[in-house]
Amino acid sequence: MSASAPLDGLMVLEVSSFIAAPLGGLTLAQLGADVIRVDPVGGGADLGRWPLAPSGTSLYWTGLNKGKRSVTLNFGDAEGRRLLRDLLAASGPGGGIVLTNAGQDWLGYAELARVRPDLIHLQIQGHRDGRTAVDYTVNAATGFPLITGPAGLDGPVNHVLPAWDVACGLYAAVGLLAAERRRARTGAGGAVTLALAEVALAVAGHLGFLAEAQVTGTDRPRIGNHLYGGLARDFATADGERVMVVVLTRRHLADLGAATGLAGTFGELERLLGADFGQDGDRYRHREVLTALLEPWFAGRTLAEVERGLADTSVLWSRYRRFSDLAADGTLTASPLLAEIVQPGVGRLLAPGSPLVMDGTTGPRPAPALGADTGAVLTGLLGLSAGDVQTLAERGIVGGPVPIPPDGGLMRDGGPGAPAG
Amino acid sequence: MSASAPLDGLMVLEVSSFIAAPLGGLTLAQLGADVIRVDPVGGGADLGRWPLAPSGTSLYWTGLNKGKRSVTLNFGDAEGRRLLRDLLAASGPGGGIVLTNAGQDWLGYAELARVRPDLIHLQIQGHRDGRTAVDYTVNAATGFPLITGPAGLDGPVNHVLPAWDVACGLYAAVGLLAAERRRARTGAGGAVTLALAEVALAVAGHLGFLAEAQVTGTDRPRIGNHLYGGLARDFATADGERVMVVVLTRRHLADLGAATGLAGTFGELERLLGADFGQDGDRYRHREVLTALLEPWFAGRTLAEVERGLADTSVLWSRYRRFSDLAADGTLTASPLLAEIVQPGVGRLLAPGSPLVMDGTTGPRPAPALGADTGAVLTGLLGLSAGDVQTLAERGIVGGPVPIPPDGGLMRDGGPGAPAG
Repeated sequence: MSASAPLDGLMVLEVSSFIAAPLGGLTLAQLGADVIRVDPVGGGADLGRWPLAPSGTSLYWTGLNKGKRSVTLNFGDAEGRRLLRDLLAASGPGGGIVLTNAGQDWLGYAELARVRPDLIHLQIQGHRDGRTAVDYTVNAATGFPLITGPAGLDGPVNHVLPAWDVACGLYAAVGLLAAERRRARTGAGGAVTLALAEVALAVAGHLGFLAEAQVTGTDRPRIGNHLYGGLARDFATADGERVMVVVLTRRHLADLGAATGLAGTFGELERLLGADFGQDGDRYRHREVLTALLEPWFAGRTLAEVERGLADTSVLWSRYRRFSDLAADGTLTASPLLAEIVQPGVGRLLAPGSPLVMDGTTGPRPAPALGADTGAVLTGLLGLSAGDVQTLAERGIVGGPVPIPPDGGLMRDGGPGAPAG
Repeated sequence: MSASAPLDGLMVLEVSSFIAAPLGGLTLAQLGADVIRVDPVGGGADLGRWPLAPSGTSLYWTGLNKGKRSVTLNFGDAEGRRLLRDLLAASGPGGGIVLTNAGQDWLGYAELARVRPDLIHLQIQGHRDGRTAVDYTVNAATGFPLITGPAGLDGPVNHVLPAWDVACGLYAAVGLLAAERRRARTGAGGAVTLALAEVALAVAGHLGFLAEAQVTGTDRPRIGNHLYGGLARDFATADGERVMVVVLTRRHLADLGAATGLAGTFGELERLLGADFGQDGDRYRHREVLTALLEPWFAGRTLAEVERGLADTSVLWSRYRRFSDLAADGTLTASPLLAEIVQPGVGRLLAPGSPLVMDGTTGPRPAPALGADTGAVLTGLLGLSAGDVQTLAERGIVGGPVPIPPDGGLMRDGGPGAPAG
């Protein structure tokens, strides 16, 4: 007997765009929740976000909406807005849950709780006071860009990974599950708000960055690829590769010294400097000399030789790879995290399921085409007839499936994620 | 009547170190769970991680363990290990939950489920197959460092924010809540595993990076502080500040054009280039000319003048700040996210609560001193007497509170987080 999905029976209406809110919904969908993303007819501002498939389909949108259902409603029309409220009212005991980063009053807690007094409503916003912000402005405001990048560099280095959006989306999933747990016990829903700027500030605080600034009044220096308070850096190999090497413990350093033939040198150096390389702080203080001693070992070896040299040691290390390496070197094919899906507008590709490996979860499912489930959801949840939906579509109150663009050079298939109509 | 905490009644035994597992526990603790961090006597490998307070107390450890209880047991002794199992057995209906990144068999699901058949056990590991990895090696392996940083740069740029650890910790919180939801409904616990490397791969997939590499076979270029597929970059101001400016929509660009007096120029340029700056793609393709046109407006203005010029527009922007700016400019004091705590070993400082704002949550609580709750937890949960605990401590089976180091120039206080004994 197979286990039920962890979030079996949970239904979430997601009115979202860009990363954080969609990632929150995706996280729940990949654990078994029925997540219905509701967009305005024609799609939201994120529908065409890069990267794109050759067909023009957004690999970003499809990546963030895997395994959800898609409904499009005319938000500019009172009847379209009423349909959203009707869906909320009809969403059953595991429903009554809204996840949104939209700021309109009619989508707010106060309005929607009139339909479902037990509503759980999670509102993602830029700042707690409602001012807008996005990952890149929040990142600038928080302090990381000015200590990221090479030591000699002037000016900020932005991250490419939108880390705050990612953290915000995952916090949103936590918040909805925590609120639903309480509702299951007490019957009471409630409003949850989550500001992107506060996610960044909270994480910076939890990791000690804010405390350090308060306690010392200064900033940690920009130290390139070194690890603050430790010994870790990238090294170039003889064949033009780069590897990242991380020493977190005394044992790591002993193993690295043995593997590189530098154990005696490290020991003598400790004595000369009056240092204890068993301590984080001393490894960090002397990081330039230690890494300078290590450089020739890496520079004189190919990646394969480095790999052989560090095998069977405790040393933490990895080759730097490009995304194209991951696709070309078999990493994606070999990973049990990924499975092939047939994505409307894209074709066959390997996509990740949830990194949470637990009974009752399944592999990745494709994202729907925009609006593909409008008919099925309105008939299934609201009891409308196919003719009713057709009339609503003709009147422009709801959208239908958009045409699927031709595949971008990949094989096309009417797989499980293909549009219904 | 005040609402119960969202995670009221939940008890988690956390056997953890470094960031991911502690952040998972912290996330639950800040929503009302009773999280007991159990460390080996003397502390784990993360006890002294930088940044440090002048007293030597880790601002990293205290930041990641706020609001938990701390118990120390001798993991090298069978009796110490048995006490952990006894705590698990005694942890009640909201307990039976273990969160760990330790790899020892005696802390694994199979062993501990013998004590609690309804055990929920979340194991964080480097790779799914058990090989070790840390944030910095995972980041190198995943592709981001080689497309981060200035366009002309050779070699990787590591992130300073350990984004994968953060995402992993938040996924862990999601996984525990999802598993506990199912247990509440079916009675069945289970094992959850979560690999740091798969967190990175999943997020890279969800955001479209892996799909792009598969579909196009190429990598996106290294574009410095530009936003891929959009128009966003940093600009220098006349007074030596930097600001990040983000244009995501047609309206943002129109507002930016109006504010900078460049609306006409943008329009004429669109005509000359045959471009449509209402489209993400065209804004991105022409990003160098658009930002070059904008540069003088920022370079000719102070930050205050930029602020006035962009006020009342939809343009998304922020000043780049340093962590020390946040501490000095009143940001931390003004934020409702942060509140003053008295942290043993550190003193008074502003620390963040949960960014999830919801009924029944409270502000931040200090981290315990290592082992500070050993006596209280063993007497409270296991029914041992104070004398029993004393004997265990004398025999080295359990640890006691470690001495609190003198404060690092900050005021000392026997506040709520001060050790019990």
